[in-house]
Amino acid sequence: MSSSDSAAPVFLLLSTPDRARAFARAFAEHLPGIRLATDPGAVDPAQVRYLMAWEFPDDIAARWPHLDLIFSTGAGIDQLLSRRLPAGARLVRMIEPGNTAMVRDYVVMAVLALHRDLHGYRRQQAQEVWQARQILWPDQRRVGIMGLGELGRASLAALHPFGFQLAGWSRSPKDIEGVECHHGPDGLRPFLSRTDILVCLLPLTPDTRGILNDDLFAALPPAACLVQVGRGGHLDQAALLRALDAGRLSAAFLDVTDPEPLPPGDPLWHHPGITITPHVAGHTRAETSAMATVANLRRFLTGKPLDGMVDPRRGY
Amino acid sequence: MSSSDSAAPVFLLLSTPDRARAFARAFAEHLPGIRLATDPGAVDPAQVRYLMAWEFPDDIAARWPHLDLIFSTGAGIDQLLSRRLPAGARLVRMIEPGNTAMVRDYVVMAVLALHRDLHGYRRQQAQEVWQARQILWPDQRRVGIMGLGELGRASLAALHPFGFQLAGWSRSPKDIEGVECHHGPDGLRPFLSRTDILVCLLPLTPDTRGILNDDLFAALPPAACLVQVGRGGHLDQAALLRALDAGRLSAAFLDVTDPEPLPPGDPLWHHPGITITPHVAGHTRAETSAMATVANLRRFLTGKPLDGMVDPRRGY
Repeated sequence: MSSSDSAAPVFLLLSTPDRARAFARAFAEHLPGIRLATDPGAVDPAQVRYLMAWEFPDDIAARWPHLDLIFSTGAGIDQLLSRRLPAGARLVRMIEPGNTAMVRDYVVMAVLALHRDLHGYRRQQAQEVWQARQILWPDQRRVGIMGLGELGRASLAALHPFGFQLAGWSRSPKDIEGVECHHGPDGLRPFLSRTDILVCLLPLTPDTRGILNDDLFAALPPAACLVQVGRGGHLDQAALLRALDAGRLSAAFLDVTDPEPLPPGDPLWHHPGITITPHVAGHTRAETSAMATVANLRRFLTGKPLDGMVDPRRGY
Repeated sequence: MSSSDSAAPVFLLLSTPDRARAFARAFAEHLPGIRLATDPGAVDPAQVRYLMAWEFPDDIAARWPHLDLIFSTGAGIDQLLSRRLPAGARLVRMIEPGNTAMVRDYVVMAVLALHRDLHGYRRQQAQEVWQARQILWPDQRRVGIMGLGELGRASLAALHPFGFQLAGWSRSPKDIEGVECHHGPDGLRPFLSRTDILVCLLPLTPDTRGILNDDLFAALPPAACLVQVGRGGHLDQAALLRALDAGRLSAAFLDVTDPEPLPPGDPLWHHPGITITPHVAGHTRAETSAMATVANLRRFLTGKPLDGMVDPRRGY
């Protein structure tokens, strides 16, 4: 069986040309038994067993009735959770080192910028003020990450050498060396009360929607900071503006908003305490995601557990 | 001999109250034979053998004729190089882990912010533009550090885990694992031609004054970036503005200027490609600098080489 065999199972990739090239190379070398296709019109829909995309057509189940696996090209899967899917198809999130490193780097950049009060210095620069602001040493700064999956753990590991006091919060108990781990609803307030710089890396689920709200901001220490690299649906944007204007929060990096793009005229655009980036904290890298997908398909074909397999009850 | 002994040699510290307290604790515990003083009027000038300050009075030699060592509280010593000093007095720069880590963290913050095009996203934010900009992965980004002393090496070590292509340039040859090392006047152009993000951590000497000029910027790849954490005297500020406006450089972090404070109305304040911080990249930490000074004095008293001893011919 070769990839040109018309009876071979089809992996349909709906993505960018650079990813199509990288997947074609990786499949040709490592998975000759699976036919990679990037043009839905050029394959028999009944043979499509694997589908990978970020934005999916509405009628997945009707178009490709025999799907075994539906892959997201991204780390999130929330775009598919409310969809009707083919019976038996399972969802797989993308876990690949290129995206993980990119999100990690954004988190380190944002945490260091907030730790060093870059927003305060930018306000001073606009006013031509040359004046040192309060110094806190890293061992006096408490960073907390919500969400302790691949991205949260990689970010904590990268922050560790700087000497911050690190904590994490997740749905289920976790144990990470050098990190004070909290979990579940009861663990949220103790986690928040010791967190000066809060990083949101949660998946978006019914449990986490709207979690960054007035109550949560009130539970943080005064003048805390936010790094929002989860999903737009986590954040009550009006609550963020209230917290900043009241001084309960001092600054925020927002990489995600609701909706995206953020509409013209939205007050988030022009708040001096907010830095906005247009959902670019992470990006799936062509070569590394192709190799991660090859490895995942080999696990599937040999009956082993997949990286990023979604538990429908948890929603991630 | 105890520290209250009026015949004991005096270490005169002209600095902040928190440093005075930390030095008093450290000397009382580890150097009881040296009398720490912080009030010049309360000691016999003839007994002052050690002087530590950042800004020094004009008449050092006349006031304290028997100085053995003159310490800077900071990593630089350029404020003393043109001064008339007591015969036999040697200069010592501050090398201490608190300041080293603080500078390192600033460099990592600035390099990550430039790597992720934060200036470009801020311009877009001001215009309410939600649009991803070009992605370069860290292994496609070439970072180069001028100055391979304590601060340059610590910064390179902290940048290494992010996967950047690293290089360094220094006066004399160096060998640092994972870093392409260039040196001397002949090594400058090869170093610059491969450097997308240039970090200046040089000491200010007659050789390095004005080194960041039109010629240097022209030798960098198009749209390179600058992190200036050396001394204001390294940079031709008009040349920086020309390079930014011509697109030869795309963005810069400036922690030092000439003069300081940067005067009101200076065009650097309001250039969209420039982030200014008021000489706060590093700060000598009271506790760690006290312990580093104790260790250095013990080396001196036992005839061993001191950390940070200045070679007057090199100027650092």
